[in-house]
Amino acid sequence: MSDKEEKIISRIKEIESTNLARDEIRDEVIATKKAVERDNELLAERVHQNFIDNNIKSFDIVGAIGAGKTALLEAIVEKLTPKYRVLVICGDITTRVDADRIEQHNAETVQINTGRECALNSYHIHQIIKNKDLNNYDVVFIENVGNLICPSDFILGTDKRIIVVSTTEGEWVVEKHPVLFKMSDIAVINKVDLKERLGTDVDKMISDAKKINPKIEVITTSAKTGENIEKLMNLMGF
Amino acid sequence: MSDKEEKIISRIKEIESTNLARDEIRDEVIATKKAVERDNELLAERVHQNFIDNNIKSFDIVGAIGAGKTALLEAIVEKLTPKYRVLVICGDITTRVDADRIEQHNAETVQINTGRECALNSYHIHQIIKNKDLNNYDVVFIENVGNLICPSDFILGTDKRIIVVSTTEGEWVVEKHPVLFKMSDIAVINKVDLKERLGTDVDKMISDAKKINPKIEVITTSAKTGENIEKLMNLMGF
Repeated sequence: MSDKEEKIISRIKEIESTNLARDEIRDEVIATKKAVERDNELLAERVHQNFIDNNIKSFDIVGAIGAGKTALLEAIVEKLTPKYRVLVICGDITTRVDADRIEQHNAETVQINTGRECALNSYHIHQIIKNKDLNNYDVVFIENVGNLICPSDFILGTDKRIIVVSTTEGEWVVEKHPVLFKMSDIAVINKVDLKERLGTDVDKMISDAKKINPKIEVITTSAKTGENIEKLMNLMGF
Repeated sequence: MSDKEEKIISRIKEIESTNLARDEIRDEVIATKKAVERDNELLAERVHQNFIDNNIKSFDIVGAIGAGKTALLEAIVEKLTPKYRVLVICGDITTRVDADRIEQHNAETVQINTGRECALNSYHIHQIIKNKDLNNYDVVFIENVGNLICPSDFILGTDKRIIVVSTTEGEWVVEKHPVLFKMSDIAVINKVDLKERLGTDVDKMISDAKKINPKIEVITTSAKTGENIEKLMNLMGF
């Protein structure tokens, strides 16, 4: 067998695994996981109906740690709060760093600490909004826990999902996370001010996003310089 | 009630939630999760014994997307391969971008595509090594799926865990991910060449890491310029 053939066979053998457990408990693991996802969807529908009934625009913002979700929200909230009453729900494993930052811009904030969970789910959101008078808000932003994988398991019941990646994450970041790009309405490629310094191929990121999800709106921004923040807000319907 | 009092009370009410499911299935969800974790630990022990029996140094490298795990591995593997026989196992949801990059540096690579799973587990590693003659390797690197949350649920059976964060992720990245820092032996703060441009407080990152885990070794690096790569390799025992 040639080296090349051997390589091809070894690649074919590579594992496309969804195995988390030994055979005896595998069915149970899958069944409970499915039950949790179904419950999440039902609750997400209820959350969304609550937002709609109160004329609230709602957004779920996902992205890796450091992509600039909080910085983008600071910039957007700063422009919105003179006209709109804004609630921002921030998810993190621990700390309330993000909520503290956003609060400086006159939005009301709630920080959810998930402990070890890698995404917000609609139970978290339901718990927050059932204690709020939704008449008091025009816009709700949910900043999800920072990663590009787990949030794909849980919809939250918002009008739109916005996925934020940045030039510092490398030009492969989009193709490596197809599920979340498929489920998102707007893709933001942030930190374009660092593009030249890093040599990131932003065009590849844009075309990967469009290839994965032809309906997705793609926009490049810099939360630092303010580039395209207004355009992003237009895409969001403001 | 004053505004300040109201704010304090609303903060106290914030949710520290580990709820993923409604009450009826919650016990079952927790039980299956625990069973999976226990199985993982048993299998990790077996994996580690295999490495030890074959005199293999083994490392699990965790970090967010874009932290520079692959770039660091490229630099390290390049220096090691004249002397050591190296196997690199790369985890990603999809693509084999990372394995293809590392393969250029004369290491053998295996790419695991996890589908939707946000971390490698010891089942993945066990599946790989049971098909390999471990006599053929001196060093095994496992590059985990890119995020700072899920890998804390699954040890893999390596000698050491190395956590990689970068200056582009913001100075809060360490304090936001205490669990994984507690479980790691070496913390790498990568992309220090961008520190001034970004204004990241690297000293805060270092002191946060030491505060969370006083035993952790912390080192700043730049995979791009090569800064401190040799020092990092010393810490790893090369």
